[in-house]
Amino acid sequence: MTVAVYLPLEDKTQWWVDMLADLLPGWTVKALDAVTDPSDVHYAVVWRPRTGDIAKFPNLKAVVSIGAGIDHVLADEELPGDVPIIRTVGDDLTQRMREYVALHVLRHHRDMPRQLQAQAEVDWHAIVVPVAPNRTIGVMGLGNLGAAAAQTLSALGFHTRGWSKSEKQIEGVETFAGADTMDAFLDGCEILVNLLPLTDQTRGILNADLFAKLAPGACLVNCARGPHLVDEDLLAALESGQIKQATLDVFHQEPLPADNPFWTHPAITVTPHVASQIDAQTGGRIIAANLKTFEETGTCADVADAKRGY
Amino acid sequence: MTVAVYLPLEDKTQWWVDMLADLLPGWTVKALDAVTDPSDVHYAVVWRPRTGDIAKFPNLKAVVSIGAGIDHVLADEELPGDVPIIRTVGDDLTQRMREYVALHVLRHHRDMPRQLQAQAEVDWHAIVVPVAPNRTIGVMGLGNLGAAAAQTLSALGFHTRGWSKSEKQIEGVETFAGADTMDAFLDGCEILVNLLPLTDQTRGILNADLFAKLAPGACLVNCARGPHLVDEDLLAALESGQIKQATLDVFHQEPLPADNPFWTHPAITVTPHVASQIDAQTGGRIIAANLKTFEETGTCADVADAKRGY
Repeated sequence: MTVAVYLPLEDKTQWWVDMLADLLPGWTVKALDAVTDPSDVHYAVVWRPRTGDIAKFPNLKAVVSIGAGIDHVLADEELPGDVPIIRTVGDDLTQRMREYVALHVLRHHRDMPRQLQAQAEVDWHAIVVPVAPNRTIGVMGLGNLGAAAAQTLSALGFHTRGWSKSEKQIEGVETFAGADTMDAFLDGCEILVNLLPLTDQTRGILNADLFAKLAPGACLVNCARGPHLVDEDLLAALESGQIKQATLDVFHQEPLPADNPFWTHPAITVTPHVASQIDAQTGGRIIAANLKTFEETGTCADVADAKRGY
Repeated sequence: MTVAVYLPLEDKTQWWVDMLADLLPGWTVKALDAVTDPSDVHYAVVWRPRTGDIAKFPNLKAVVSIGAGIDHVLADEELPGDVPIIRTVGDDLTQRMREYVALHVLRHHRDMPRQLQAQAEVDWHAIVVPVAPNRTIGVMGLGNLGAAAAQTLSALGFHTRGWSKSEKQIEGVETFAGADTMDAFLDGCEILVNLLPLTDQTRGILNADLFAKLAPGACLVNCARGPHLVDEDLLAALESGQIKQATLDVFHQEPLPADNPFWTHPAITVTPHVASQIDAQTGGRIIAANLKTFEETGTCADVADAKRGY
């Protein structure tokens, strides 16, 4: 079997080629741009492929997304409609997201930005906040990552709600399903965590209308995708005080351009898409295992639903 | 029954007097300095009493500490040796400490101080850290607060150790007991959380010797008492890099004087004794219940061991 690998950085591509070659003895692993006969390629392992990258392989059996999301693959307008897309998910990814969400919800809950400001001003000023069971946190999106994040927040003591398109049951979490329940889910939410997949339905979902339905002075943590957020609506909501603080890990354009106002906004924490970066070693092992299973059985547990978009 | 109340701030004292009077119908509650006949007083409810404050009441049945620690009561050199001291502990206090420890361990684990520095420099610089199960966290002190903190860290996925004077069993936590095990407990610890009681044995325990036994570049979270720490040893360990960052909630002198170098040290986070401030409403209810139980039965579950010091 032959695997073609593409990532936007050439040296990263070579690193993945070498690792996958080690993990898949007997297979041929090449950089996508080094393929001479496209009809030879059976699998493409990609992050943010360029338009037409996938379509050039007539005998492709599956595309592997190096990450949990498949939006970056679906963004290719020439993507063949019938090729299965395999997501890369694992305990490592889930663990890192749990840490990120716990850290940033706790930061906003205990108002660390203002507490650090007091330190900068040499001001012994105790910021007293409600105890976590008296705080309502909402998690939008209850897939692998969202469900784990909601459970983690509940275990930390927060009153935790979760919203998803289809019904989910999570111990210790008050769950809401479908568009009709969105207003009830948002009502009284003091910290909102976004972990939705990026689809045509969810693009721009973090907008002025949604912000207005949260508790006044709510905080936002976006660790899903940049295009979920309407950037100017967030800036306006911070200006009015409807949103007090936000932590953003993802952006319309990444790296975030140096002149973007988010960088220097006093109420915005910018992290450079680190919430749940897959560890390359672990990711490589998961991908190799998925490729072997797919080759043997014609499918694997992590095949995404391209029509649904995740 | 008559209760005398003392806190270092007069308006806070009056606030507690009024609240306890509401919660203890039929009892007399007075500010300690408003007592005219000392032989009338049966209980003293205090935070940081002055030397001799307690000794002046010949018919005292018990002293109540407004807080989990009793070191501030034992610091009174004229304290009668036989008067029981009742601690004030509750779910609220434990919940707040769990939040604080989780927040600050996660902050150091994900190196938020350096990530925030990158934002300040408009630098899209991803700081990649090990996943929590590959991090060793140590909690010193496994009383109510320490045990809850250790359990919380373990549930977040950290490899968690706990040390205490006497043996404890905590699910998901590798426990060490007694002075002989201290070196093994510290060896490889990457983040150390101090929740020990302050006694003659633990005063100054956070010193150069201890720091040298941690993993190089370890982080420290002190949310117990200021005198646990030898301040100049911490500054030296930060200078050498043996300690990378520290979060301090407690200090030898509180409020921390404006000229203390901790305020402006780039590797130190100062919080103004807020880790687990008892909520006055909740604290009042717990104290009133303990006083009623003590009056009826001659003891209560929260009586401290003054000889042990906690």
